[in-house]
Amino acid sequence: MEQRVPDTFKWPDGFRAAAVISVDVDAESGILTDHPQTAAHLNVVAHQAYDALAGVPRLLRILERQALPGTFFVPGFTADRWPDLIRTIRDVGHEIGHHGYQHEPVHGVDEATERDYLVRGLDALERVAGVRPTGYRAPKFKLNFRSPRLLVEHGFRYDSSLMDSDVPYRLATGVEPDSPTLIEMPVQWALDDWSQFAFMPGILPGTTIESPSKALDLWMLELEASVAEGACFMLTLHPYLSGRPSRAHAIEQLIERMKSIDGLWIATAGDVAEHAAALDLPARWHRPLPGADN
Amino acid sequence: MEQRVPDTFKWPDGFRAAAVISVDVDAESGILTDHPQTAAHLNVVAHQAYDALAGVPRLLRILERQALPGTFFVPGFTADRWPDLIRTIRDVGHEIGHHGYQHEPVHGVDEATERDYLVRGLDALERVAGVRPTGYRAPKFKLNFRSPRLLVEHGFRYDSSLMDSDVPYRLATGVEPDSPTLIEMPVQWALDDWSQFAFMPGILPGTTIESPSKALDLWMLELEASVAEGACFMLTLHPYLSGRPSRAHAIEQLIERMKSIDGLWIATAGDVAEHAAALDLPARWHRPLPGADN
Amino acid sequence: MEQRVPDTFKWPDGFRAAAVISVDVDAESGILTDHPQTAAHLNVVAHQAYDALAGVPRLLRILERQALPGTFFVPGFTADRWPDLIRTIRDVGHEIGHHGYQHEPVHGVDEATERDYLVRGLDALERVAGVRPTGYRAPKFKLNFRSPRLLVEHGFRYDSSLMDSDVPYRLATGVEPDSPTLIEMPVQWALDDWSQFAFMPGILPGTTIESPSKALDLWMLELEASVAEGACFMLTLHPYLSGRPSRAHAIEQLIERMKSIDGLWIATAGDVAEHAAALDLPARWHRPLPGADN
Amino acid sequence: MEQRVPDTFKWPDGFRAAAVISVDVDAESGILTDHPQTAAHLNVVAHQAYDALAGVPRLLRILERQALPGTFFVPGFTADRWPDLIRTIRDVGHEIGHHGYQHEPVHGVDEATERDYLVRGLDALERVAGVRPTGYRAPKFKLNFRSPRLLVEHGFRYDSSLMDSDVPYRLATGVEPDSPTLIEMPVQWALDDWSQFAFMPGILPGTTIESPSKALDLWMLELEASVAEGACFMLTLHPYLSGRPSRAHAIEQLIERMKSIDGLWIATAGDVAEHAAALDLPARWHRPLPGADN
Repeated sequence: MEQRVPDTFKWPDGFRAAAVISVDVDAESGILTDHPQTAAHLNVVAHQAYDALAGVPRLLRILERQALPGTFFVPGFTADRWPDLIRTIRDVGHEIGHHGYQHEPVHGVDEATERDYLVRGLDALERVAGVRPTGYRAPKFKLNFRSPRLLVEHGFRYDSSLMDSDVPYRLATGVEPDSPTLIEMPVQWALDDWSQFAFMPGILPGTTIESPSKALDLWMLELEASVAEGACFMLTLHPYLSGRPSRAHAIEQLIERMKSIDGLWIATAGDVAEHAAALDLPARWHRPLPGADN
Repeated sequence: MEQRVPDTFKWPDGFRAAAVISVDVDAESGILTDHPQTAAHLNVVAHQAYDALAGVPRLLRILERQALPGTFFVPGFTADRWPDLIRTIRDVGHEIGHHGYQHEPVHGVDEATERDYLVRGLDALERVAGVRPTGYRAPKFKLNFRSPRLLVEHGFRYDSSLMDSDVPYRLATGVEPDSPTLIEMPVQWALDDWSQFAFMPGILPGTTIESPSKALDLWMLELEASVAEGACFMLTLHPYLSGRPSRAHAIEQLIERMKSIDGLWIATAGDVAEHAAALDLPARWHRPLPGADN
Repeated sequence: MEQRVPDTFKWPDGFRAAAVISVDVDAESGILTDHPQTAAHLNVVAHQAYDALAGVPRLLRILERQALPGTFFVPGFTADRWPDLIRTIRDVGHEIGHHGYQHEPVHGVDEATERDYLVRGLDALERVAGVRPTGYRAPKFKLNFRSPRLLVEHGFRYDSSLMDSDVPYRLATGVEPDSPTLIEMPVQWALDDWSQFAFMPGILPGTTIESPSKALDLWMLELEASVAEGACFMLTLHPYLSGRPSRAHAIEQLIERMKSIDGLWIATAGDVAEHAAALDLPARWHRPLPGADN
Repeated sequence: MEQRVPDTFKWPDGFRAAAVISVDVDAESGILTDHPQTAAHLNVVAHQAYDALAGVPRLLRILERQALPGTFFVPGFTADRWPDLIRTIRDVGHEIGHHGYQHEPVHGVDEATERDYLVRGLDALERVAGVRPTGYRAPKFKLNFRSPRLLVEHGFRYDSSLMDSDVPYRLATGVEPDSPTLIEMPVQWALDDWSQFAFMPGILPGTTIESPSKALDLWMLELEASVAEGACFMLTLHPYLSGRPSRAHAIEQLIERMKSIDGLWIATAGDVAEHAAALDLPARWHRPLPGADN
């Protein structure tokens, strides 16, 4: 049966749209998983360590100045390597979400392995910061068809990895009407700073580093349009990219614009997800395609 | 014998140029054909489903607000997966064209296979929406030398896949003067939103996502110049890209500019093709190159 | 012995810099050499045929309107396939240069093969248009260390393929003081429209199509700076790219700016090369590097 | 033990930030190492020789006009091939640093080989210009975990290759508190002109050449933000890229802006490193990751 186009999303009283500032604290985790040989490459390790040594601290200062909460998705590996950093994020009141253990993409792995990533990530956040996250962001935004079910089974209340909607929705874990559900907090590539700033010759394919003014133009336009459309503007930042001085300044300009917009709810992913969970939303089930078996 | 440079194209009385808003509703079809393993990747499937779940609906709202008809090229697979969507496109009066069954590129396949794609696509559009399209857009704009002949044999009156002209022309299916012909409605890469917005690490090669303001600048300049040159401005949109809020707003600005231009005929590809078919146009035959055998 | 940094180049009386509008009429030749399978791909062949069917005619109209001569580097294959086009270029008074037979890169081929490309290209231009070019532009700007000697042996007076200078210079064909020489008319990637507009998924690596306004900004800045530095501004256009309406309009704006600059000599590559040949220029010999054997 | 986020860096009295103009004079060295076959390709060799024949001379003229010192990192191979050029850089008072012998990336090589690159580079700079550099910039910014120790053993006082900080810091060569240290002068990709201008089809992956105005916008924004954050703005130029007329003009505009900023210390990398060395800075040790063994 065909899925219905969603009706207008109902925001809390007084609000007509929402914005979430999410930060993926990948640090060394992802590059080590994708390119294990870089473990021996001091320059690559240092490049990623900018997350912890300069990028997150600068973004935290911005959020403090602007008096806004952020949502930090933290791989377990990052928590283990930079425990004080994660505890600081927690202590100043930001939300901490799950982002895999070593930023492992789950495509092509079996269910037991995928579960193991979840458990190891949960254990690390618990061990390091005593945090039990309610939200999950898939490394590289990659999910299997089975993944929503696994997330529910491990106690997650929302996922933030899919790009099929402009607003939060209820994500079904199976075709049966009584299948468990969780809330999906959608993302999009154009609001991920990685598409604008990532650059690493020989590791990433050929790209050009954009000016912060270009990224700001892109994000401002999407912010304005998201408000007009009643959407949820989900910004995704990587501190080793957007923590650089001029990019961080652009982020702060974007945040100042957010605050100036009447009726825009700036909140954590978790708070927005809880709002969505309280609505009477129909569940969307993504029908597998021929050839899918997970 | 060498082909002649075409004379000035004769537009209907009162018009000096034309613009067509074409929309390729690929949804999951193309990525599943190019990368079958993504059938198991929920995030990729959801990314493409944005077409049906948000992008097409938003573009339909724009066309309704602007009171303009569009031409939607729909793969049969999309029609089968999202039948209500296709029926809605039909019901509000837009043109529906053929776009392969599962968005299969025809390079390197034999004639029987290429025919099969045509038939399966026709069957799906007939079965789902009762539509018999007169226009064809090749998946990825890819055609073989034999393709125009096959299109004529299957009843198509126009194709919209080639980049050798700024205006419609009569396309010969063979070198003989009495070879059947059809109308070609030319496209170009720079007017395809895919060149500006497509982004999928690990699946697409390294690109950078452009701002809607850059794409709008590019398209506005080509629109103005196309009018000055008496050309046919053929915009090609993918709703999972251009259906995003700020991009859709840019598209609407572009359309508003179109409407403000005196003497610009904004029409469906089918209507422009019918106009061209009624002109006394010489037929262009593309001479095969050494090594071509299809 | 180390080469000297060149002194200021002496332009003709009244001039302080020069600009050349060069056009590489590759049409189908290059893509057929690089990707022989595309001979069977009607869309690729048509994409390249835009050169002959729309791009060159539009650029010729601009040059006529602006009353300026251009230098057209024409592969023999293009001359054979589009003879009337080449004769038109000749008849309206533009310079025609050599650009290989089928746009063959000469890296890795033996001397006999490289000679054969030269001879076949010369034969085609003679046969089709009765033209004996004095200038050569290497396909893809690729030269071997032996190439300048071969060019001299085949009667060429200048080459336009190297990127080691901002001004024309005398290029030695060997280390001996009495080695024959020819004039080098340098090019640069940033003034080649290919770097801004080339786009062909699956054939070219991932790029983004730039707006004509960006290319114009880039070229205007280099034009102004070239004049200030007394350089030779060598624009390289591909009509299947820059012959598109809005890009051609940008080119015309650039040309109008050229004409407004006091002391800028706008000439063919051949005329500038003849001027350089009449100066008492020292010959530059590029010392081979370890590992070079051609 | 987790590394601390660095406190505010203490600049000399009267200064609140610093800027360094560094120039990597790769010339033919790097491309010959990465793509040995290009030794036979005259156009590639000439493209790189622009460094010596036009780019460095133009940048030297700018620095002279602006009365500012630069830091030139010179591969030994460049010194051997262009000795007069290197002696000129030395004679007019700029700093000369080490940049490998033939621009060899050190990833994956054993310690003896890495030492050999250092020694050969030192020998060439001594032999050609009588210079014993105190600073090192790794070819491609690539370092192994062992590299800082080797640099100390060969008498270097600072390295300029890592991207983990916005300000200079003391880099430990081992985990023991009494391990020798050197100063790190951090770089970043966005301030490397290579990310904006590098272009060589078939050798580099697909990129687009940016306008100097875009690069200038990017660098101006980072300059302003670096000053606001008390950072060290480390510009990295390649003369075969930024020595082109309009790019060099943009560089000069950037330098003029630097000079207009109150409290910005414009100095060589060596001078800034000596300042940092005199501060009581804690040493940062980069903990190896699992899998690293060098």
